[in-house]
Amino acid sequence: MSGELIRLGLAGLGTVGTGLAKILASNADWIERRLGRRVEIKTALVRDPSKKRDLPENADIRLTSDVQDLLGDPELDIIVELMGGQDTAYELITGALRSGRHVVTANKALLAHQGNELFALAAENQVGLGYEASIAGGIPIVQTLKEGLAGNQIKVLTGILNGTANFILSEMTSRGLDFQSALHQAQVKGYAEADPTLDIEGMDAAHKLILLIRLAHGQDYPLSRLPVTGITHVDPQDIAFADEFGYRIKLIAQVRETNGLLDAGVFTALVRRESILGKVDGAFNAILLDGDAVGPIMLYGQGAGDLPTGSAVLADIMNLARNGRTPNNTGFQNAMLPMASILAPELVSSRHYFRFSVLDRPGVLASIAGVLGQRNISIAQVVQKGSPAGRSVPVVFVTHKAQAQDVQAAIREIDNQSFIAAPTVHHRILSSPA
Amino acid sequence: MSGELIRLGLAGLGTVGTGLAKILASNADWIERRLGRRVEIKTALVRDPSKKRDLPENADIRLTSDVQDLLGDPELDIIVELMGGQDTAYELITGALRSGRHVVTANKALLAHQGNELFALAAENQVGLGYEASIAGGIPIVQTLKEGLAGNQIKVLTGILNGTANFILSEMTSRGLDFQSALHQAQVKGYAEADPTLDIEGMDAAHKLILLIRLAHGQDYPLSRLPVTGITHVDPQDIAFADEFGYRIKLIAQVRETNGLLDAGVFTALVRRESILGKVDGAFNAILLDGDAVGPIMLYGQGAGDLPTGSAVLADIMNLARNGRTPNNTGFQNAMLPMASILAPELVSSRHYFRFSVLDRPGVLASIAGVLGQRNISIAQVVQKGSPAGRSVPVVFVTHKAQAQDVQAAIREIDNQSFIAAPTVHHRILSSPA
Repeated sequence: MSGELIRLGLAGLGTVGTGLAKILASNADWIERRLGRRVEIKTALVRDPSKKRDLPENADIRLTSDVQDLLGDPELDIIVELMGGQDTAYELITGALRSGRHVVTANKALLAHQGNELFALAAENQVGLGYEASIAGGIPIVQTLKEGLAGNQIKVLTGILNGTANFILSEMTSRGLDFQSALHQAQVKGYAEADPTLDIEGMDAAHKLILLIRLAHGQDYPLSRLPVTGITHVDPQDIAFADEFGYRIKLIAQVRETNGLLDAGVFTALVRRESILGKVDGAFNAILLDGDAVGPIMLYGQGAGDLPTGSAVLADIMNLARNGRTPNNTGFQNAMLPMASILAPELVSSRHYFRFSVLDRPGVLASIAGVLGQRNISIAQVVQKGSPAGRSVPVVFVTHKAQAQDVQAAIREIDNQSFIAAPTVHHRILSSPA
Repeated sequence: MSGELIRLGLAGLGTVGTGLAKILASNADWIERRLGRRVEIKTALVRDPSKKRDLPENADIRLTSDVQDLLGDPELDIIVELMGGQDTAYELITGALRSGRHVVTANKALLAHQGNELFALAAENQVGLGYEASIAGGIPIVQTLKEGLAGNQIKVLTGILNGTANFILSEMTSRGLDFQSALHQAQVKGYAEADPTLDIEGMDAAHKLILLIRLAHGQDYPLSRLPVTGITHVDPQDIAFADEFGYRIKLIAQVRETNGLLDAGVFTALVRRESILGKVDGAFNAILLDGDAVGPIMLYGQGAGDLPTGSAVLADIMNLARNGRTPNNTGFQNAMLPMASILAPELVSSRHYFRFSVLDRPGVLASIAGVLGQRNISIAQVVQKGSPAGRSVPVVFVTHKAQAQDVQAAIREIDNQSFIAAPTVHHRILSSPA
């Protein structure tokens, strides 16, 4: 790139694309003061160029529905892909990289599925592939892992990576709503899409976790091998019980490294209410890292939205504009990362929360405790509340560390007992990270 | 820089220098995997080369007391200045920059006093001057301001930047200690130095704030014009009153921008206990930013220590090793930053906490409230506790926003009244930042 102006070809003028246009317009002089050059969107690829759009008045953007107006225009310095989806985005990004153009994208799903191939292609063509906006909105976690903490081996990374899920859980906690009502609130406030599946079933957080594992460990962890649970099963009574024990229920994305093996997953977990991660409420995201040199570090901010995500897209653009060198995309020398060394999921160790729905009969507590004991699951706390006659009652167990295979076997065995009135509810408990 | 090995010349083998040597030894393969090159300390400048030191076994470091062994060695790629102090460090850094060598330093005091000159010298010689380790230990705040949030104008930046002061205040809060006992605890635990003056009187936080203002605003704010208060005057009874109102007392470094004017200072302030900043306890640091695009962002971590600070030094080294280009030291095109536009301190507006020590006479409350009202200070809450007969009693006022000149005038006037038994205590109250 040379010359005074950085010209962008933008694919997608939705929320984030419009946010980027707004920041470029409102902070044009500021950006030039930092960069020495101006940045402008020359052409935007949209489905319907005739549609009325809320763009800044001084933005002189040519709208087109023809991808060749981006790929075939030699004046464009950087292609910014904010259209989402996989097939067309893949064609656009690979086409841009092959033509020697830098690419900036927020497409976590595409990178989670085909990142290794795309980073290799970027390296082959000696261009940048920026993706700061793919994880946790405006929080600069990609650069922090690639550069700020580059000398650290990350022992534990724990993220609240999906603002929609965190908003829903926060509403359930603070207002006592059930899942459906809280989801409706999130949709009314614009925090959840009409089809919220990716958010509430954990897959959006899973995509981001795959990217974080690449950045923190330099390993390619196949999405298909990542255990993923969402929040649709979270029950208000478990939120209330968790509160009694001093915890909040959060959707957690986590990777831990032990003896060279990675143990990763997206799951609901109890987080200490008074910990700094327990204070991450509403649509906010946070990533708590434990590096072998730096110790615990947390980054916190809005995980989505037009301007926060636009801020991250712009950071990538400015870094690419500044650097004449071959960019550092993966944070490692090898663009094609090796396959991850994965700890078998059944061997993963964690503390657990169980809620058993039992018929109020003598010997039930002893029977449950007996099964847990046989499976090497050691009990830390038990709560049983009084019961209306003849109805099932909840019995809550909080355990010390236990292996997943023992936990699964114990639940299977207990759920087969005649005194069990409903399937057992089960969440992990985070070891105090900060 | 070229060749397979990055050779460092290190000035100072104290806590941080030894920490850097440890990380380089334990993570050598990891660093090479990220960088494609190994990093080693070739020569270390120390006062007494014969002194026994706790260095990694495989570190082959030549010790010297002659600064020319650093400045005169053409094999050294980067000079790392971790000796502290001002005169010798200044000679070393300017010598290294003039000889075309990159410099990495943790010397916040030197940069706060002479940063503009040093950055200009680095730019003139087209070399890097890295200082990630100067602010908040391993927290990557320098890079975040220079790059991750580069497209943002930062409206408010609020930092807990001194771990010693925060540890002392946390001990006073959680264990009810007075200032002297808590300071002693900090010294026993190694969080405070034998001479803790810079930490407890706010000057260390002030040095860091000057650097943050440069990074966030691209302006040179003279240290001499920064209002600085420490924590030596913090009284356990104010911590207890603050708690009653739902606040913690913290040592805050803050810069706000309004209509192009900067309002900056280091001061004690009441921070909402349930806010995420209110959860920053012990020796931890945090920086909460409000960017015009990204919204609120917080970075949290250990603010000092051998390995956390060593991690930041290493990040700078790795970035310099990666980048063949002219480095981006200030985050702005101009190395020599313009003088800051400063809001007159008497016009700074904030909420306030007052504790008046009054003799228990009729009309006292009305008299105080009258003075505050005449000075346009609007009262939000008042607490007066019962009194032992004849002794002075504390009366606590929490105000809405008021201007500093009105606050100072009101305190002067009230402290002249015959019913005042001791000078009025006064802290700011942070507007809820997150």
